[in-house]
Amino acid sequence: MNLAIGIDFGGTTIKSGVVAKGKILQFGELIDTQLLPNHDALIDALVALVADLRKAHPAIAAIGVGLPGLVDSANGIVHELTNVAGWRDVALREILRERTGLPATIENDANAMAYGEFKHGAAIDARHVVCITLGTGVGGALILDGHLYRGAQLGAGEVGHLSIDYRGRPGPYGNFGGLEEYVGNQQIAERAVERYAKAGSARTVGECSPLALKSAAEAGDPVAEQLWEDIGDEIGAALASVIWVLNPDAIVIGGGVAKAGELLLGPIRRSVQARTAKVFHENLRIVPAALGNEAGIIGNAILALEWAAAHRAEVL
Amino acid sequence: MNLAIGIDFGGTTIKSGVVAKGKILQFGELIDTQLLPNHDALIDALVALVADLRKAHPAIAAIGVGLPGLVDSANGIVHELTNVAGWRDVALREILRERTGLPATIENDANAMAYGEFKHGAAIDARHVVCITLGTGVGGALILDGHLYRGAQLGAGEVGHLSIDYRGRPGPYGNFGGLEEYVGNQQIAERAVERYAKAGSARTVGECSPLALKSAAEAGDPVAEQLWEDIGDEIGAALASVIWVLNPDAIVIGGGVAKAGELLLGPIRRSVQARTAKVFHENLRIVPAALGNEAGIIGNAILALEWAAAHRAEVL
Repeated sequence: MNLAIGIDFGGTTIKSGVVAKGKILQFGELIDTQLLPNHDALIDALVALVADLRKAHPAIAAIGVGLPGLVDSANGIVHELTNVAGWRDVALREILRERTGLPATIENDANAMAYGEFKHGAAIDARHVVCITLGTGVGGALILDGHLYRGAQLGAGEVGHLSIDYRGRPGPYGNFGGLEEYVGNQQIAERAVERYAKAGSARTVGECSPLALKSAAEAGDPVAEQLWEDIGDEIGAALASVIWVLNPDAIVIGGGVAKAGELLLGPIRRSVQARTAKVFHENLRIVPAALGNEAGIIGNAILALEWAAAHRAEVL
Repeated sequence: MNLAIGIDFGGTTIKSGVVAKGKILQFGELIDTQLLPNHDALIDALVALVADLRKAHPAIAAIGVGLPGLVDSANGIVHELTNVAGWRDVALREILRERTGLPATIENDANAMAYGEFKHGAAIDARHVVCITLGTGVGGALILDGHLYRGAQLGAGEVGHLSIDYRGRPGPYGNFGGLEEYVGNQQIAERAVERYAKAGSARTVGECSPLALKSAAEAGDPVAEQLWEDIGDEIGAALASVIWVLNPDAIVIGGGVAKAGELLLGPIRRSVQARTAKVFHENLRIVPAALGNEAGIIGNAILALEWAAAHRAEVL
């Protein structure tokens, strides 16, 4: 029992693959959720996908699905699905099991990605891992004592709302100074526009994507250089607070903004070192995510296999 | 096997007791560490204490010791002991086992107190617990998924160094804005002196203890009232960050400053509610510690019993 399908719901597409020993043997066909008229059509598409992959790999033993939104992994229910209308309290785990005959799991997408990086990616040798995803929003997930940590309402890992300044920028929940309000994609672009204007150079938000700011900094543009420095310091400040509380042995940084690479990782590492005691950072690895888009597929497949092994008696 | 001795090292004294089902049946004689000339004398005193308690309770099955300082609970070694000179890398667990013939555990004092509150105190019905201790320093400990969480270097739980302002008050580790720099005993007193001076009233630091400020606020003194409000907001801001990351179901607040009671708990609860999403706070209990000085004795005894049960094969 070591072959599973991992399915990863993204914003508008669903990626999948057959996973063995942490490697993807075959990708499933991409599903475009925007082309499917409703909830039933989407489930039909998932079932067809599974049937298709099982033809090539009859030994598939489990299905793991990761989804953005409000997911109750313990009871197998998707309460809300980001970007897909009409999903309310769907008992997806049981539906998939009935329609495919295979044990299935569902999980929050950030958790599944983190688990993939922990089991087969950047944090393979760690036991306490903080994952942070830098994109439009700032998300996160935790592996503690070698297990996915979900918290009381399965909401743990929201590093993007951790405050770096309790009287700082207002956030969406009445919170102040949440990291996301400083280093989300849109916020980075707006801060760049503002700083370029102060330096006497007019730029639009569209011209200040993370990629454009990376190129600018690499070409020696002092405004872009300083902005990456400051963003790294802010992310490092948030991570330092997490480090004081959780004393992890690895921090994995993923998402689009992380593509800035050393421009961002350097300042993050310096900020963390400056803001924590030596015992907390001297053996701490701060590393980029290693599995890219495949982390979710791999993580979901592993979670499904582990669940199936632990619940074999019930499943049979 | 349900009777154990819990031993709790404090700043200058050692408290102990015989514990059964979370209750202290009998206290041991207080040991004054300042009267003991060296490391060997202190261990002799502990061994005599254990022998004394076993006379009255021959069924005692284990010994749990909690100590302030750098404690390696996994390997049973006290690396450093706060306020007691000459303790360097003492293999206390093995020494106690050899000299008493009983299985022993050692643990960081904050962790042991938290475990006591979790098993038999304020957080008895919770599964994910953040404990914070407000005193000269601000300490903390975590129970996650029903287990004491220690982290990679056993340093987890340092809520006092979590930053509420990444450009705020400087701390002892190059950190900025650590909660302790705002709400430690000494810092509270200094802030009170400053605020009274601004209000035209000269007070000394000695006149601004937490207890004096509590009485003043209860008598309607607006300076003291506002100070408790602000301190509660700051503690709430730090806890809100922990809540976004860990999604706990209980927060236990202990230590001398917590004796301000509702003067402090009210503002903390309001701050947490204002700074977190509803799903994170609507079922969250923020409660005062319930076991007072007994939490450490009880927690250490329970940890020792659980360790002995899990390691019975090795012990025998």
